[in-house]
Amino acid sequence: MPPPAVVTGTGHAPIRRATTPDRRILPMTIKVFGHKSPDTDSTGSPLIWAWYLSEIKGTPAEAVLLGTPNTEAAFMLDRWGFEQPTIIEDVAAGAPVVVVDTNNPAELPAGINDADLQQIIDHHRLVGGLETKGPIDIRIEPVACTATIMWKMIGKDMAQAPTAIKGAMLSCILSDTLEFRSPTTTQEDKAVAHALADELGIDIPSYAAEMFAAKSDVSAFSDAELLRMDSKAYEVGGTKFRVSVLETTSPGTVLDRKASLMETMPTVASEDGVDQVLLFVVDILNEESTLLVPNDLVRDVASRSFAAEAAGNTVLLPGVVSRKKQIIPNLKV
Amino acid sequence: MPPPAVVTGTGHAPIRRATTPDRRILPMTIKVFGHKSPDTDSTGSPLIWAWYLSEIKGTPAEAVLLGTPNTEAAFMLDRWGFEQPTIIEDVAAGAPVVVVDTNNPAELPAGINDADLQQIIDHHRLVGGLETKGPIDIRIEPVACTATIMWKMIGKDMAQAPTAIKGAMLSCILSDTLEFRSPTTTQEDKAVAHALADELGIDIPSYAAEMFAAKSDVSAFSDAELLRMDSKAYEVGGTKFRVSVLETTSPGTVLDRKASLMETMPTVASEDGVDQVLLFVVDILNEESTLLVPNDLVRDVASRSFAAEAAGNTVLLPGVVSRKKQIIPNLKV
Repeated sequence: MPPPAVVTGTGHAPIRRATTPDRRILPMTIKVFGHKSPDTDSTGSPLIWAWYLSEIKGTPAEAVLLGTPNTEAAFMLDRWGFEQPTIIEDVAAGAPVVVVDTNNPAELPAGINDADLQQIIDHHRLVGGLETKGPIDIRIEPVACTATIMWKMIGKDMAQAPTAIKGAMLSCILSDTLEFRSPTTTQEDKAVAHALADELGIDIPSYAAEMFAAKSDVSAFSDAELLRMDSKAYEVGGTKFRVSVLETTSPGTVLDRKASLMETMPTVASEDGVDQVLLFVVDILNEESTLLVPNDLVRDVASRSFAAEAAGNTVLLPGVVSRKKQIIPNLKV
Repeated sequence: MPPPAVVTGTGHAPIRRATTPDRRILPMTIKVFGHKSPDTDSTGSPLIWAWYLSEIKGTPAEAVLLGTPNTEAAFMLDRWGFEQPTIIEDVAAGAPVVVVDTNNPAELPAGINDADLQQIIDHHRLVGGLETKGPIDIRIEPVACTATIMWKMIGKDMAQAPTAIKGAMLSCILSDTLEFRSPTTTQEDKAVAHALADELGIDIPSYAAEMFAAKSDVSAFSDAELLRMDSKAYEVGGTKFRVSVLETTSPGTVLDRKASLMETMPTVASEDGVDQVLLFVVDILNEESTLLVPNDLVRDVASRSFAAEAAGNTVLLPGVVSRKKQIIPNLKV
């Protein structure tokens, strides 16, 4: 029996603060969610943590999503027998929430700072902007994946985790590390993934290949959807970018569409209130990226950020696979 | 032999990120500091963590202060044989720093967001505003004291901690919990304090009485210094407050000066760019506060926030001892 995507428990809520005003008769179920445009980690980590809060800590909790999961995340849900969690638009004022896999208000519901934010578990740079009225529980560590931190926090209670929860954890780590190829990968991420794969009897290379094939199947998506699929807003030197990556084992499939992708960039940029979309097509297996170069602004960005001169309307960036470690920290205009 | 306040170690710096540009031949010593107007936790926790980084992790680190320690913190330094750490004005761009006991940029050096912020250990509400260029290590937990979190993070390596480090930890916890009277106190804070006191052979009630007597000796301070001594900026409903507390076992000593304290408030408010100073004189032993009421704005704050009607120019708030749990979350104008 797969566990339901929505798990609820009973009893006292240990992470609710004593000062939280409780105007309700029944305890509110804590909503656990990751970032908008959910990838595998932002889909799997809420399921893992909602299980832990509900089943181990006795705190009613429910995993939800802030958008449609990407194709790899959808594969993960199906492979391990989860129903797709409910997609929510916003959170109510005062509603108890736990945020995982981000600390960036731009990637969270508009009402996040009026919700009762009880906990953050994340592995990204500190963005600033989130705030709480009372003390909070935060764990942010420079590892590759939220699930790796959760594995440590759950500790010996992992012995009680159902197969599906372990499968979600393994999927999150393989996804965020690109099967240990990303320079964000730490020894901790590797050790946790190997321990989980052993317990589950999963062959990592073949399972990762299935995941990446699912992620690479982007035929169903419009150009605008591809430009927004795995995207972070980032401002540098007064210029606002949407920094999009498409991790794929089949870069040619995406690059065949480069003309229409570049034509769609101004519309997406305008609708999303940024100056320019940057699309990096990440070739997972060959560990390199191709940046689309629609104009001189992006040509200059490529030159100043990566010392790479564009030939035509693309530029190849050997070794660049991580937005977090290699793209964002180097971005210059 | 007391340990020096400035401790340095050798060898590789494990918490430095691989992406940190290192333009220097020698490794930079990490500066560890708490908030401005340092109290016991913001003086002791940097010493504890600099010891841990230097002596256990082999990462050169130095505790520094962002101002003169208060009288209780000075007592703690003297009692356990520490030299007073260096007081710094600002941090250099790119300098490696660890922040403890705050996550509020207003309580930190002006250059904090250009420094190489590597780690935050704290127990306050999330304020927002700090940001980093790369992944970071953050541990924020809703306990009463930073030292309690450090005790857990150091784990079995506590066996190697010198007496002075254990003494600083115990002092931090007794200070932040007001000897377990504050509602911020958790079972974890209590358990850690009792374990440390047992190891050190310290009688908690008599040691806490010495600490609180030191904190209560405010005769050397001007009115303006008292108003700024333990103070947090907080804005509510568009009005900016400096929310000051004076924890004392001798409230009469402070309240004897209430006329000149209230006269000094407008000058301090103006110099510090806030609308009003709120001074809560916290009677540690009787677990109550007296709020000075210099004008109708504060009279209204007392009424709306605590349902307390001022008689004359003070108002007694029974049971109110914690700015974090009882004052800030309730503040209304």
